[in-house]
Amino acid sequence: MTTTQTSGTEAVQRYRRACDYAAAAMIYLRDNTLLREPLRREHLKPRLLGHWGTCPGITFLHAGLNGLVRRTGQRTLLVTGPGHGAPAVHANLWLEGTHAELDPALSRDGAGLAELVRRFSWPGGFPSHLSPEVPGVIHEGGELGYALATAFGAAMDKPDLLVACLVGDGEAETGPTAGSWHASKYLSPRTDGVVLPVLHANGYKISSPTVYGCMDDEELTAYFSGAGWSPRVVDVTRADDPDALMAEALDRAHAEIAELRERWRPGERAVRPMLVLRSPKGWGVPERDAGGDPLEGTFRAHQVPLGAVHEDDDELALLERWLRSYRPEELFDADGRPHEDLLAQLPPEHLRLGRVPEANGGRLRRDLPLPDVADFAARVPAPGTGSTSPTEVAGRWLAELVRATEDRRDFRVLCPDELESNKLGALLEATDRGFTWPLPDTAEHVAPGGRVLEVLSEHLCQGWAQGYLLTGRHALFPCYEAFASIVDSMVDQHAKFLKISGEVPWREPVASLNYLLTSEGWRQEHNGYSHQGPGFLNNLLTKKAATARVYLPPDANTLLVTLRDCLASTGRINLVVAGKNAGAQWLDLEAAERHCAAGAGVWDWACHGDGDPDVVLACAGGVPTVEALAAAAILRERAPEVTVRVVNVVDLLALAPADRHPHGLPDDVFAACFPQDVPVVFAFHGYPSAVREAVHGRPGADRFHVHGYLEEGTTTTPYDLLVANRMSRHDLAADALRRAGRGVDRDTDLAERLLAERDDLVAAAHRDGVDPEEIAEWRWGA
Amino acid sequence: MTTTQTSGTEAVQRYRRACDYAAAAMIYLRDNTLLREPLRREHLKPRLLGHWGTCPGITFLHAGLNGLVRRTGQRTLLVTGPGHGAPAVHANLWLEGTHAELDPALSRDGAGLAELVRRFSWPGGFPSHLSPEVPGVIHEGGELGYALATAFGAAMDKPDLLVACLVGDGEAETGPTAGSWHASKYLSPRTDGVVLPVLHANGYKISSPTVYGCMDDEELTAYFSGAGWSPRVVDVTRADDPDALMAEALDRAHAEIAELRERWRPGERAVRPMLVLRSPKGWGVPERDAGGDPLEGTFRAHQVPLGAVHEDDDELALLERWLRSYRPEELFDADGRPHEDLLAQLPPEHLRLGRVPEANGGRLRRDLPLPDVADFAARVPAPGTGSTSPTEVAGRWLAELVRATEDRRDFRVLCPDELESNKLGALLEATDRGFTWPLPDTAEHVAPGGRVLEVLSEHLCQGWAQGYLLTGRHALFPCYEAFASIVDSMVDQHAKFLKISGEVPWREPVASLNYLLTSEGWRQEHNGYSHQGPGFLNNLLTKKAATARVYLPPDANTLLVTLRDCLASTGRINLVVAGKNAGAQWLDLEAAERHCAAGAGVWDWACHGDGDPDVVLACAGGVPTVEALAAAAILRERAPEVTVRVVNVVDLLALAPADRHPHGLPDDVFAACFPQDVPVVFAFHGYPSAVREAVHGRPGADRFHVHGYLEEGTTTTPYDLLVANRMSRHDLAADALRRAGRGVDRDTDLAERLLAERDDLVAAAHRDGVDPEEIAEWRWGA
Repeated sequence: MTTTQTSGTEAVQRYRRACDYAAAAMIYLRDNTLLREPLRREHLKPRLLGHWGTCPGITFLHAGLNGLVRRTGQRTLLVTGPGHGAPAVHANLWLEGTHAELDPALSRDGAGLAELVRRFSWPGGFPSHLSPEVPGVIHEGGELGYALATAFGAAMDKPDLLVACLVGDGEAETGPTAGSWHASKYLSPRTDGVVLPVLHANGYKISSPTVYGCMDDEELTAYFSGAGWSPRVVDVTRADDPDALMAEALDRAHAEIAELRERWRPGERAVRPMLVLRSPKGWGVPERDAGGDPLEGTFRAHQVPLGAVHEDDDELALLERWLRSYRPEELFDADGRPHEDLLAQLPPEHLRLGRVPEANGGRLRRDLPLPDVADFAARVPAPGTGSTSPTEVAGRWLAELVRATEDRRDFRVLCPDELESNKLGALLEATDRGFTWPLPDTAEHVAPGGRVLEVLSEHLCQGWAQGYLLTGRHALFPCYEAFASIVDSMVDQHAKFLKISGEVPWREPVASLNYLLTSEGWRQEHNGYSHQGPGFLNNLLTKKAATARVYLPPDANTLLVTLRDCLASTGRINLVVAGKNAGAQWLDLEAAERHCAAGAGVWDWACHGDGDPDVVLACAGGVPTVEALAAAAILRERAPEVTVRVVNVVDLLALAPADRHPHGLPDDVFAACFPQDVPVVFAFHGYPSAVREAVHGRPGADRFHVHGYLEEGTTTTPYDLLVANRMSRHDLAADALRRAGRGVDRDTDLAERLLAERDDLVAAAHRDGVDPEEIAEWRWGA
Repeated sequence: MTTTQTSGTEAVQRYRRACDYAAAAMIYLRDNTLLREPLRREHLKPRLLGHWGTCPGITFLHAGLNGLVRRTGQRTLLVTGPGHGAPAVHANLWLEGTHAELDPALSRDGAGLAELVRRFSWPGGFPSHLSPEVPGVIHEGGELGYALATAFGAAMDKPDLLVACLVGDGEAETGPTAGSWHASKYLSPRTDGVVLPVLHANGYKISSPTVYGCMDDEELTAYFSGAGWSPRVVDVTRADDPDALMAEALDRAHAEIAELRERWRPGERAVRPMLVLRSPKGWGVPERDAGGDPLEGTFRAHQVPLGAVHEDDDELALLERWLRSYRPEELFDADGRPHEDLLAQLPPEHLRLGRVPEANGGRLRRDLPLPDVADFAARVPAPGTGSTSPTEVAGRWLAELVRATEDRRDFRVLCPDELESNKLGALLEATDRGFTWPLPDTAEHVAPGGRVLEVLSEHLCQGWAQGYLLTGRHALFPCYEAFASIVDSMVDQHAKFLKISGEVPWREPVASLNYLLTSEGWRQEHNGYSHQGPGFLNNLLTKKAATARVYLPPDANTLLVTLRDCLASTGRINLVVAGKNAGAQWLDLEAAERHCAAGAGVWDWACHGDGDPDVVLACAGGVPTVEALAAAAILRERAPEVTVRVVNVVDLLALAPADRHPHGLPDDVFAACFPQDVPVVFAFHGYPSAVREAVHGRPGADRFHVHGYLEEGTTTTPYDLLVANRMSRHDLAADALRRAGRGVDRDTDLAERLLAERDDLVAAAHRDGVDPEEIAEWRWGA
């Protein structure tokens, strides 16, 4: 099995020549694709948009993997970090016939190649980077940094899958990639697949040398060995037969992986192979451009070398000479079909890199066996009773889901700041934290193969989640609210991937990406200012309406219902914000189901007065709901003549006009909650701007007076934190009195009195170090 | 000089006992601070908020550094990654007298200690984490991951400064930290200071073991050697005299650094020392809690061990025994003053860790010698002339600034995606890219000591910038617009640091953090969807009005003026969005100065008709300005009876009401731009929600109809990208006709015709691969 295929590499070289040729053609040509006639300017694309530098390396790896798969039958998925090398991937997909399978216009002949070449970087065609439109792709690779983490996510719970991951040396400089090298410590040699990273030391980024390209073999070997790998350098610049060298390296890696799986025992290090590929940037491009500047092996090969072809005859001649150096006439027959010896380099059809089913994960996705929430619901005999932690209740339900998927192994919980801290510890009764390296004696609930993963890296959790979901599985990502913003840009990119995927006919929808933001800012009064930040929500609101959902369940049962619905959904990014602190409950399960289905609604039991109210007290989020209810109670007692309606919003986008968001309440339902011209004092969990953006386009949107987080905070008491942001019950009640607009002195006086009482309460909290009992122990109806 | 101080470590141990005692007291006590009487429950804080686990390790390092500084006179700044270990830092600052210097209430006696202990984690007191309120601190350490990058920024251009950086093993798991280990390759042994990282292998995070804690010495040594360090393990669990071991390690590191500075020649590796500190988590806490669970060396020591002291007599007794184990009566005299032998452990006053001037960088900051923009301004004889790249012009001015600061060395440009690519290449004529490792032969403009830094890591650039600014220098961070969101959360934290700094009387304002977002989404039609994302701007709008500024200069001269003003400012986060593509210019320098000073204004030359207009065409950002002007031209020609006012907004927050933002236009000036009740069609560079948020609170805010980025995009032509987002001139003109509300059939017909023409133009772009000449070559007035 470890026998190396050193013969026959001439055909591999021919295969690579064909791919390199096709890739270069994609960047430059719109016509005369196979150079059957002399190259003339009208054969060139008017705009040359693409990146050559990384392409030959990608094809070199592709060709090597083809050989490995052919020899071993190993199911292999390739995650390509340098997504700007899309032409190389297209060339390989065309040659292996995957393009033709999904789109007959891209047939494996001259017509198909011409079409592919024309479509690349052309309006309405293929983008210049990888994208969901490209078969075999689960990673776009435009925003660099996440290929490796994504690869690990794809490999989890797929013991028969090899995930090769090409990491550019530019991308390697990113923090998220640097942190990802340790991720193999989380994968079990028994129950997970294996990631085979290939660091492509290509030497240059856009114009700077790369950090990893400047490290010598000894440094690279030490670095990766220390990170837990068995690295091997494949240096094509020092090889007589680069393809033989690569074949040998891949075969040996494959054998080492198999051996590890046999040999490894829990408690041991699971050291796995990885490759460092050294090849000249732009490998194969002319040595110099028409001006005499060096090209091959330099930064000038990064994007479009010979960029002056449109104006400079010498460059055009150089381009023709370069393209002809691949001798396309030796590679393609009269009809433009690749010669048989090239096709003989391919693995069997079902194992070709573009066709591995995991790359279209929606096809593999199965609905989760979601436990009945009724078995886990909090008992709520009346609003305001009980003392329950919403996430604790959710944790028990999630633990049952982990048990129910024990055999299927297609649900994971990925958590940067630890389940215990988010009160999801019940999960650890159902499974362990997965970790494969040797452990200290005092570690608890940690073992290889555990189904929950904890790592102090939001980037890793996000990359893992993306890889896991896009290969057909399900995941939950609980996170401290303030630190979810660490992955803002990764969410942006995932939202883009989902949006385009939805436009690709052959892509099936994958499971939604579900965030559970807890350890919310309002209860981070102990950790202080850095832990108070609800901005992740705002970022999600900039995404397409088809993708983004924001839920703020105010208690345990609404959280259960919301999580159940999110985990059953596909194609979305669901943001669920929920508290972990024990508190009173508002809705029994039946009411929670109704409320969540509606998205928002009047809480009759908390309203006061008949008919259209003087003011609506609206709320969204656990803590704001308590404050709004307390404000309603204050008003009922101390200003009984003011009529107040209380509306709770669990689905933030229910506030949006129905023509702007699919969850938007119909106009009449909205008006039933917020009667026209009645002022709304809104207690909101996050930045006020989020509610303002949600209600934009509703009639009289400016009557929504939103209280929320104003970037005021420190280590203090919960009530003091609310007051600092003008979100306390006293602030809400005073504002409601003002907005009710009755113009009565009594209201004005009471509002002033409330604010003075508020200040007294704050003074007491500062004196005693705790909130006064009347605040800390306040209960609805008490 | 390399002689190790192995005697006298008993006094060091006593020093540490005093600090450990004080730190523990801060977490638990509100009274009876020195345990002069038996510990009773009323001496306890009602809420126990703090983190013990990391504290003893922080003090161990502090004590070691004190010794090093005492012995060598080395100016040393400490960056503490685990900011939750604030009690240890406070204890050391109190003991070294820095607290007393800045606040007499924190005197170095029993009264001062009692005050410090009471203030910690108390409303109105010190927060539970490090913060700007703490002397010597330039890094808050709440959101983990950035200590190391910040330390490197602080060390740059400070050849006499040693920046010790404690990195927790939790923090080490983050991507940004993992990527930061390579940063020393960017520092010159000649012209920069040195970072001495200390990886604290403490074993556990909140409840999980850490990745680095699970690596053995061999792995850690290989890993850090590979990354370019000379690592040394300081394992207190295997040392008879931990302080002697640490002293020796620090002395040796210091000697190695001095030797490297002597020996090193350009082109050589600059391998520097670092330490791995292994110590038990919570070192010194009782072995087990009252329930028998292990504490010392386990995750249970992370936060508040013996958390049940309020309810459980055994835990209370254990706490007392633990606190008394430090024998405070041996460390403090009758007045609570630390004994002389403890004070003898401190460095000379001016070298104490809390007093290094760099930690209050505003005091060191000098105004930049900003070159006169007049010497660099683009010639603009009339609006719509020339063909200039705004960033190219800015690059020449910035190059001059680099020259002007050559000797001062207090201005740097930090760039993740390369200056050349952002058309700031002129900088490379004034200086090199700083890089110290061996280089490939073909590298250009790269050398140790170069003043611009390029690394494919937004996290590193941001951390560097923070460290550089907070120690009194100046920086510019140019970035691809879409990838600035990678540092959303870091900006959040920096904004918080600035806000609190502004409230600390002894902190002087530091230079603003200046972003130049270029390679803007509208001209990323070639790189495609992943490169199109203006969300960084939205995030900044959630920050305090005193901190956040957003500028969208539409051409070269407005960019020059904006950059000059930003680089002269302090205490802010300035976001400047500007194009790099060559295009027509609108304002000569004089007009640009006026326009930028106003923030927004009517462009008379582009208006059409007298008196109040039928519609205002507003614009912000380079590309939207072109489209709005083109729309105005279309309307002038084809609907001359519609009166149109054109308003350009260069300072986005000029739109905000003056009582909400200091840059908000006065009401009358705002009304002069946007007359009451006149509809506004707004062509905006980013997400429409940003403008809606900015104008919130202005009269009739809902008459602002904002066109902007709608998350539609791919690789295509610039015009097609605009149309996909309904931001083309045709969309704007048609919308303006509709909104003008004249109810004339002619307007409706023309609007429809315009959209049909738009669709024809898109079809032509799809056919030809380029935008039709009338779009691509459009010029104002032509």
